[in-house]
Order: sequence, then C-alpha cells, then structure tokens
Amino acid sequence: MPIKPVIGVTMGDPTGVGPEVILKALQSPPPGCRVIVLGDLAVLHETAARLASSLHPYQWQPGTALPTDARQLPVLALSQLAPAERVPGHPTLAGGDASYRYVENGVRLSLDATLDGLVTAPISKALWQATGHAYPGHTELLATLTDTAEVRMMLAGKQLRVILVTTHMPLAQVPRALSRERIEKTITVAATHLRRFYGLAQPRLAVAGLNPHAGEAGAFGDEEQRLIQPAVEQARSAGCNVVGPLPADTVFVRAVRGEFDAVICQYHDQALIPLKLLSWEDGVNVTLGLPIIRTSPDHGTALDIAGHNKASPRSMQAALRLAAEMTQPRQNQGRKRGKRRHDHTRPGR
Amino acid sequence: MPIKPVIGVTMGDPTGVGPEVILKALQSPPPGCRVIVLGDLAVLHETAARLASSLHPYQWQPGTALPTDARQLPVLALSQLAPAERVPGHPTLAGGDASYRYVENGVRLSLDATLDGLVTAPISKALWQATGHAYPGHTELLATLTDTAEVRMMLAGKQLRVILVTTHMPLAQVPRALSRERIEKTITVAATHLRRFYGLAQPRLAVAGLNPHAGEAGAFGDEEQRLIQPAVEQARSAGCNVVGPLPADTVFVRAVRGEFDAVICQYHDQALIPLKLLSWEDGVNVTLGLPIIRTSPDHGTALDIAGHNKASPRSMQAALRLAAEMTQPRQNQGRKRGKRRHDHTRPGR
Repeated sequence: MPIKPVIGVTMGDPTGVGPEVILKALQSPPPGCRVIVLGDLAVLHETAARLASSLHPYQWQPGTALPTDARQLPVLALSQLAPAERVPGHPTLAGGDASYRYVENGVRLSLDATLDGLVTAPISKALWQATGHAYPGHTELLATLTDTAEVRMMLAGKQLRVILVTTHMPLAQVPRALSRERIEKTITVAATHLRRFYGLAQPRLAVAGLNPHAGEAGAFGDEEQRLIQPAVEQARSAGCNVVGPLPADTVFVRAVRGEFDAVICQYHDQALIPLKLLSWEDGVNVTLGLPIIRTSPDHGTALDIAGHNKASPRSMQAALRLAAEMTQPRQNQGRKRGKRRHDHTRPGR
Repeated sequence: MPIKPVIGVTMGDPTGVGPEVILKALQSPPPGCRVIVLGDLAVLHETAARLASSLHPYQWQPGTALPTDARQLPVLALSQLAPAERVPGHPTLAGGDASYRYVENGVRLSLDATLDGLVTAPISKALWQATGHAYPGHTELLATLTDTAEVRMMLAGKQLRVILVTTHMPLAQVPRALSRERIEKTITVAATHLRRFYGLAQPRLAVAGLNPHAGEAGAFGDEEQRLIQPAVEQARSAGCNVVGPLPADTVFVRAVRGEFDAVICQYHDQALIPLKLLSWEDGVNVTLGLPIIRTSPDHGTALDIAGHNKASPRSMQAALRLAAEMTQPRQNQGRKRGKRRHDHTRPGR
C-alpha cells in the first residue's frame, strides 16, 4: 500500500474564518492524504463545538503516528491563546503573532519532509506587520524561509489557471514594472511548475497582452512588441511551449475551451476577473517557484462573518484537494488530461 | 395592430463577413420588426446564392411600402460595385467608400424617423481612412452626424452589460485619461440610456475600480479616492442609483447574479474580458448618448473567413434583437426584469 502524503494546514488568524473552513472542509477530506493542522487547540475545540463537528482535534506530537480513526484530527499546537484572544471577529496581536508561527513551522516541516504539502488559511497582513513580522503576506515569507529568489502567484480554478507577472500594485505602475526578464521568468517558472506538479510533459502556455487587442501592432501601446513578444520568443527558444502576446479579451475563452493549460497575465485584475467569474468560491491560490508545495483558499479572514458558521469551505476544500494532487503528479496528469476538450469552433471574426 | 418598427442594417465592408451574417441572421429575424438593408444589391444577391438562402434581396425605393412576404428582403442600394470589387476577402477602396455611404445614409434615415433603429455590420477602419473618411470608426461618425458631444460604448450580453469610460488606448494612458467628469458623464449617459431604451425606471449601476481591490483604501493607487468615488457621489446626488468603486474582480460576479443592471468599466479589457467570457458569440455593441438607436455585432470584418460560409450570425442576430427591443422599452422591461435573479448567497470572504 503506498504511503499517503501528509498535508499540513495552517490555521490562519484565530479570529477569522480559517478554523471554521478548515473543520468544514475536513468533514470530507480529499482522498489519499492525511492532514495535520498547525494551530491552536482551544480555538479548534471551540470551533468544532460551535459547528457540532464530528471531528475531534487533539494535540499531536511530532514523530508520533498519525491516527487511523478519520474523526481524530491531529493538531500541532503552536499557541495557547487566552479566552479573550479567541473571540471570532475580534483579532488580537497575540493571535496575529501566533498565525505567523503556524506558517513558519509549516514551512520548516515541509522543508524537512515531515509534510508533503502546505495549505495556508487566511491571515491578517496588518497584524503580521504590527507584531514585527515585516512580510506583505504569505508569499514573501515563504520565499524568504525557503530561500527562493523568484516566486509567482497562480490562481487555479476548475476551468482556468492564471499566473501573474505583477500582483498588488497600482495599475499606473504596471507598465513600468513589466520587463522582458520578469515576463520570461514567469513563463519558465510556470512551465517548470506545471511539469513538476501536474505531470504535464509540455505545458501549453499563452501570454496575455497588456493593451487592448494586444496593442494592435503598436496602435495602442508598444509593450507587446518591446517586452512581451521578445520574452515569449526567448522562452520558446529555451524549450517552452508558449504563444503570445494574445488579446486579453479572447485568450481566456481559448484557455477554457482547452487550447492552453494556463494563461500568463500581466496584472492582477486581468487574471482575477476571469478567474473569479469562472470559480467564484473554488479558486485556489498556488505559489510557484518554491521548493515546497503550497496552496491556499483565495479568500481573506472575512472577520464580518467569522463565528457565524456561514463561511463557505469550498475554496479550502479545493486548496486541500489541489495540494494532495500536486504530491502525485502522475495520477494528476491522467485526471486533468481526461477532462480537457479540444473545441475548434470559432466565432465569425 | 401596432405599426412594426423598421430596423436599418448597414451592410459593412462588402468583402467582409457582413453580407453573410446579415443574410444568415435574417433567415429568422427578430419578431415584431421589419428590416431594410443599406448596401449593394449585387453583393447581397451573390451572397444569397452562395448561402442557398431563401431570401430574395430586391431594390427598395424610399417611400414605397415594405413587403408582406417575409422572403422578400428590401435593399436600399447605395453602391453598384463591379465584380472585381465584390470578391470576399479582398477589400477595395471602392468597397470601403461604399461602406461609409451605407452608414451615412442609415444615420440620415434614422434622424428623419424613416428607420426606428440602426444595426451596423463591420467595416474596415483602414479603408475609411484611405478613402478620406477620417473617423476612427462607426462611433465617432455617428457622434458627428448626430451632433452628439459625448458618446459611450456599451457591450451587452445575455448575463452582463458593461459600459466603458475609456476605450482604445494604451493601458499606460488610462490612469491619465480618467477624470471625475468623464466618469460621472459615463454614469449619467448609462443611466439615461437604460431608462430610455430598457424601461428601467431606476437602473442599478456599479462602477468598477481601476486598481487591484479597488485600491484597498489607497494602498494600491489613489484614483478610486481622487476620481471615482467623487464621480459616484456626484452622480448619486444627481439622482442615479449607483455604487462604487467596487473591486473589479468581484463586481462582475455580483452583476451576473442580478445585483446590478450594468457595470461601468474604467478601461477596455476590464469590460471586454468578462463580457467575452460570458458572451463569446452573442455580445452586442451599443452606442450610448446618441439620439438614435444603434447596435452592432461585436466582431470585425473577419476577412480570413469571408466567403467561406462559416461566419457565425449569432452576434448579428443578438444586435438585431436588441435594436428591436430598444424601440419598445416598455415591453422590454417586462422581459428583462422577469429573467433577473436576486441571489444573496456569498462566499466565505
């Protein structure tokens, strides 16, 4: 019998929806993997009671066996928050600091192969800052702890995968932030990731243009000719199966129809608009370029509904499933490939 | 019996897919309207023969009655192109010049109320330039001929309507091109249009932000606070039912779920990405702000497939149907309202 991969799930901010979506998602965990939660035992107990969950969180000691009873939920306890620090919707400095430790330990245990993959529940970026952890978010911390120079953000839905050249910056800064090197690196990081974790021998990538109609031969901007086209050509000559720049208003339709495995996007909303439209509740955030597997749900702490038992676990379920699949890329390949359609219909244009 | 509205359809470039999609679409014209084509009789005859169409194009004289036989297609003949000027896929200066006259006459007949609405098939912008008609496209010509200072572009699909603050310009120029006035004018033009032509007493409008997360309170750009928010407030105080700026990656989902009648978009791809994803072949382009009704399919001349009988008529059909509906806003209201869902589910965010 093959050894099942072990996925670590960091609990996120103790007062956000993290504990709730984790327990809801683990009611029906993805098959073929085992899960350890890195978090706070009291918070998970209280959340399980509030949800009337059949899961029993218990304190797991590293090096000990994982339970055979699916109702037993092993927790690596990394904080002991006081009752006043465990009130849903009311974040505290202690909880923010604890949420940092969950991730830090999760990365350490991934690097030493105790964990085969890491899923991170949402944290409060402001509280990380306020407690002296000067990282804009998970991604930057993961890059630092794993000594990775270049990471990229991918969002994966059932029908579409998008990978971002630039992420959280004013739109006015995007054209200046683009460079041939940055675009080419995004292509190669994407190709490497899809080869390694999805079992795609030659991932088919498309690169979206920056401007309307991908610049229409320079009529509406020159970034396509000056930066994107050379980056695509360089990546092709390095062996990537990549085309572009393609007009952003049609490239996603072509990807959804099965023509591409992923679309490289120049800026945040270019990627997030189509992804959220197609995968409202089940998009998964994946960090590319790391030596470890890391996914996360694509929502935040949602403090306004924390403790109300109404957060949807779908994105967390999808993040768990994808992390589990990524540990077994060969099986993954068969599953993904089978679903793909090749539709060559085209509109009258 | 009420008098049926008359829709004029300009044939577009004679060598593009215009004649083909018109004849295909008119095989099953929208109920409750009559159609006159403004174009070239020989081109339409040849196209009908090639398609084995049951329609019989014939030369219609202004002032004469429209046919009662649905197979008879009245054509206002505005060119007599030579055989060499009628080869699909091979545009000529004569054809480009003729395509300009079709539109010019269509506008004139709309202004004098011979036509109740105008649908324009695609033209070659380059050939308009080359034949001395110095308009970037239909929209600018329509604005000039109708003496309209401010027009806006709307794209309408079955599930989503988007209206553009800026259209065809490099992305790098968009932040500078935005102004409070331009955004506010877009809101009021949109509200007026939806009131007048869709019978919506108080159209519910949303305005998308420019930056990721609509700027996240200034963290990723200040255009939301500096321009968009003030424009929205001004439009509200002028009586518009409008909210925003809202994050662009969620506003379209909310519109599709029935929360808004239309979304005001700051730039081309912000609007076109979601619209084309949801309405690949049946999106309709509508010009707002004109004193006349004008719609068009959202595709181009598609010279590469002209004459091959494989252009999809779906966008032309949708453009005809929408123009016909716009002539009768009260009936329209009932139809549109009935379809709308109010879905208040929300994800865990």
